[in-house]
Amino acid sequence: MLSKPFRNLPKKVRIVEVGPRDGLQNEKTIISLEDKIQFIKLLAKAGLREIEATSFVRADKIPQMADSLLLYQQLKNDPDLKNTSLLALVPNSEGMKRALDAGVKDIAIFTSTSNSFNQKNINATIDESLERIKEVLVIARNNNIRARGYISTVFGCPYEGKTSLDELKKITQFLKDQGVSEVSLGDTIGIANPLQVSEVVEFLNRDFALDFFSMHFHDTRGMAVANVLASLEMGITSFDSSAGGLGGCPYAVGASGNVATEDLYFLFESMGIQTGIDIGKLALATENILSKINHESPSKFLKAFKSQGF
Amino acid sequence: MLSKPFRNLPKKVRIVEVGPRDGLQNEKTIISLEDKIQFIKLLAKAGLREIEATSFVRADKIPQMADSLLLYQQLKNDPDLKNTSLLALVPNSEGMKRALDAGVKDIAIFTSTSNSFNQKNINATIDESLERIKEVLVIARNNNIRARGYISTVFGCPYEGKTSLDELKKITQFLKDQGVSEVSLGDTIGIANPLQVSEVVEFLNRDFALDFFSMHFHDTRGMAVANVLASLEMGITSFDSSAGGLGGCPYAVGASGNVATEDLYFLFESMGIQTGIDIGKLALATENILSKINHESPSKFLKAFKSQGF
Repeated sequence: MLSKPFRNLPKKVRIVEVGPRDGLQNEKTIISLEDKIQFIKLLAKAGLREIEATSFVRADKIPQMADSLLLYQQLKNDPDLKNTSLLALVPNSEGMKRALDAGVKDIAIFTSTSNSFNQKNINATIDESLERIKEVLVIARNNNIRARGYISTVFGCPYEGKTSLDELKKITQFLKDQGVSEVSLGDTIGIANPLQVSEVVEFLNRDFALDFFSMHFHDTRGMAVANVLASLEMGITSFDSSAGGLGGCPYAVGASGNVATEDLYFLFESMGIQTGIDIGKLALATENILSKINHESPSKFLKAFKSQGF
Repeated sequence: MLSKPFRNLPKKVRIVEVGPRDGLQNEKTIISLEDKIQFIKLLAKAGLREIEATSFVRADKIPQMADSLLLYQQLKNDPDLKNTSLLALVPNSEGMKRALDAGVKDIAIFTSTSNSFNQKNINATIDESLERIKEVLVIARNNNIRARGYISTVFGCPYEGKTSLDELKKITQFLKDQGVSEVSLGDTIGIANPLQVSEVVEFLNRDFALDFFSMHFHDTRGMAVANVLASLEMGITSFDSSAGGLGGCPYAVGASGNVATEDLYFLFESMGIQTGIDIGKLALATENILSKINHESPSKFLKAFKSQGF
């Protein structure tokens, strides 16, 4: 008997573009403020309505994001971005205050299901990180700021291997109780497989609605598109990706970038699912930023699109 | 409501390794007979039990395959290959006679659902190609040779766009009536999407058992692994791939190679589905042949495996 996994696909999906932050943060070449602004504006022109623009982290730790205040000052009243949410990653209340000063309206906070990963990434246990997040979210609520939660290493940790689903549930519940609008589930080292994705989604769906989640896959082992497909079949309709597949993870050696927005465009649109993306304009945005960092995109679709136009 | 697409995954799958023929045929660098033999033997050591080894085509048309007779002479009694089927692609009765002389036991014949593609590829209409195939299969039957059928451009043609499902059904029925043991459905230009895959498989399953089919995806647009997943969910358990993702298609400009055997290894094994492959030995076979053709593998999994060991 055939199963019918493709009977109930959605009409459209939501794509959160993380290239300017998650992508560029993990690129070695420092990008000028002007180039970042151009990149973000080109992404918005390509139809991306939610863009992770920068992070308010310590400039000495992550030099690529040192210009976050200037970036927001220049972009926040830009008429071309009036229908676009610009998210900023915020690690702690200090960063949150700086984000507020910059006029940020949408933030993202982050933790991990792995104590070891959190220790290496932000020098905190899971519980310590949740305390920090709690402080940030108090400020966010008091200032009517929407907050998105990232949970890293959901599908595996470079230090601990498999991570705990109970820990995932606990963190998700905590973030929900603290008022985040959604949680993005990160496959930080690109180790997930479609069966595992289906199991994790099914597990979380016992306690949470599926529209509370976005999926955030890295393409380290070439499985990201298949994992997106598995998520879609399970009822997920929100996905993070980066233009051209920019990025990686500095705390996970060898981990390649986010799944490319272009690959998701083709996966969805070829199945008749709307993304709102103008692929020609997106390719332009990607080509433009790639020319600054001097490497090729790992997106096979982008390569085919450039050579064949489809 | 959740659909349950991952409930009925098989315990194991069959992988047909097409690197030495479909892969190398489309590589520009001419590989020596000795290197081809080593490649095939390393693939067999890695656990691949069905290997498309060469083709009996005109040497002036495809110089890479000019040594097919010598290849078989050296391999057919090799004790390391006694559990391994070596397939040879045969375009017509002339090639079939040469294959017989060489001692070939398993052949593959090929056509396409597109008249334009067949014209450019083999200078024949679909019907003319089926006549040629009929002659080949008479000889095959009379000599107790197993024959596999390839159908190209099932999911789209570079010249005609979408191709006909009715033509696909007609060709499949013809090949079945003429005694082929199976049909491999080719996404020659890597244009398929998972929904289309599910529709094609469902369509064919009205008239044919699913174990009559193998899926043959190219990764031109980065969708091959997702298309394999969709096929698997629909009940297909046989897949073609090439070590390292070697190859392409000389008649379809810009089309990248077959899906990498390494990517399929990780997709399946990470979901608990056996492939019979020893990944360390496969990586060795792939590295060895890549060193002769001087380009990198497009397999992201292979890259991760080399740098991290998993």
